[in-house]
Amino acid sequence: MYENEIDTVRALLQSRPRPTSLAERRQRLDLVAAADPIAPDIHFERQMVGMCEAEWSLAPESDTAKTLLFFHGGGYCSGSIQSHRRMVAETGRAARVRTLALGYRLAPESPFPSALDDGLAAFEFLLAHGVPAASIAIGGDSAGGGLTLATMIRLRDAGKPLPGCAWLVSPWVDLEMTGASIDEKDAVDPLIHRDYLEELADAYLGGTSARDPLASPLHADLAGLPPTLIQVGSAETLLDDAVRIARRLGAVDVATNLEIWPHMIHAWHLWAARLISGRMAIASAGAFINKHLAT
Amino acid sequence: MYENEIDTVRALLQSRPRPTSLAERRQRLDLVAAADPIAPDIHFERQMVGMCEAEWSLAPESDTAKTLLFFHGGGYCSGSIQSHRRMVAETGRAARVRTLALGYRLAPESPFPSALDDGLAAFEFLLAHGVPAASIAIGGDSAGGGLTLATMIRLRDAGKPLPGCAWLVSPWVDLEMTGASIDEKDAVDPLIHRDYLEELADAYLGGTSARDPLASPLHADLAGLPPTLIQVGSAETLLDDAVRIARRLGAVDVATNLEIWPHMIHAWHLWAARLISGRMAIASAGAFINKHLAT
Repeated sequence: MYENEIDTVRALLQSRPRPTSLAERRQRLDLVAAADPIAPDIHFERQMVGMCEAEWSLAPESDTAKTLLFFHGGGYCSGSIQSHRRMVAETGRAARVRTLALGYRLAPESPFPSALDDGLAAFEFLLAHGVPAASIAIGGDSAGGGLTLATMIRLRDAGKPLPGCAWLVSPWVDLEMTGASIDEKDAVDPLIHRDYLEELADAYLGGTSARDPLASPLHADLAGLPPTLIQVGSAETLLDDAVRIARRLGAVDVATNLEIWPHMIHAWHLWAARLISGRMAIASAGAFINKHLAT
Repeated sequence: MYENEIDTVRALLQSRPRPTSLAERRQRLDLVAAADPIAPDIHFERQMVGMCEAEWSLAPESDTAKTLLFFHGGGYCSGSIQSHRRMVAETGRAARVRTLALGYRLAPESPFPSALDDGLAAFEFLLAHGVPAASIAIGGDSAGGGLTLATMIRLRDAGKPLPGCAWLVSPWVDLEMTGASIDEKDAVDPLIHRDYLEELADAYLGGTSARDPLASPLHADLAGLPPTLIQVGSAETLLDDAVRIARRLGAVDVATNLEIWPHMIHAWHLWAARLISGRMAIASAGAFINKHLAT
């Protein structure tokens, strides 16, 4: 239906040659992901969470008693508050909640489990500031989706309260890359390929096993997690990460919704300004989050 | 959340010992599935479709220009308009559409592809009576889910217009029973087990290969099918039929939603009068159908 539209995003991505250095990669993601303007009616505010920078967003008519805690993607090595600002703020608007986007520490400078420690600290920061766990959604795209699951697993294992729901966009949950779609979809995915993922996994793992359940939640016991929405595009090498984690969540009695969006590419919500399917996916995520957070 | 509630349905199922003869099985499904009263505000009307009995339902405030064509479950060997009457009518109410439930021919008296021929004839009956394809949803549970897919595949292959959307509840799409959940979930599924499925498959196939794509749509080319909602319970041996067909639909660019409902059993919508999760699943299906049918 919207095949042509996604082609305009593919052209945008191709317009900037794939960089190789880490610094260039980080800069590129900030540029291509944050290509579209932020709506002027959203209020942003900087926030330190421990040693990490974070950012609140609040759209008009949102409920400040509910918060979406967001972990950006970028393979644990890039991505930022800036790159994902529009996606996070617009999802907050759709869910009618406040958002807190976390600039967690990145690999290779800070390998596993630094990002996870930061994620946990941000959730506990919200609790300490009076937001009940049931009024928090945790979400993230790509590596941020894996981080979302790992954070909840650590909360559960520590006997702490869990968020009201979780939202995973194009999640990366298998750092061994054993999904059939890694090869099947290689030709149609403009962003994510096996060699790139292997490099990112090495940088993040820094010697930890790729089968560690907190690095690859595909191998984790997922019982007890809250209702989870997973959104993935059909033109993604990570399609099977989404399908397999949905199966594993559902099989242990987690309320699980999996949406596979035709022709969409990795974390297409980033380009929602150009994509009807991006706006529809954000609307669907917003409705899911709104429905599952306690008032 | 609703674990206790489903236990009351499990008790209902256990209260009638599992019959062995075909006639007893048919009678039992009509009894246990149709255990709850039909709402008095729904208008029913008998309809012959070729040689098959069918039944219209219409709830107040529904749009008679839109129709849910429904294929009941029962392993192609049992099930009826009566057994599924409440489930179908309440989904029509939730979707605000008219429903047409089809009493297709059953195996072993009428093996493959009799049921499929009847399904196609019913869709064409609606077209011939002025309902545009885009205003029709096709849906079904269990074997009826497989039949829904097979009907759409035959329509597509014949170059005919397709329905606006499809709805699959606990679909049976692999008559070889190769899903891991067939064994993994055997102990928690009160209804569907390998030996029973094998008997049903033999009766329906009557010599046709279990890998025939119109008997086991898991093996079909699914490209071009309309948006599809799949709902399955976590306590089902057929969990992996749902997960695998979702993956295959999504991978060929069909808009695909998969919902895995905690603790729910095969085709739990049948007992929605006793199950909050049954009413919620019907509401979700209704919203999906309503959204995807042309006005």
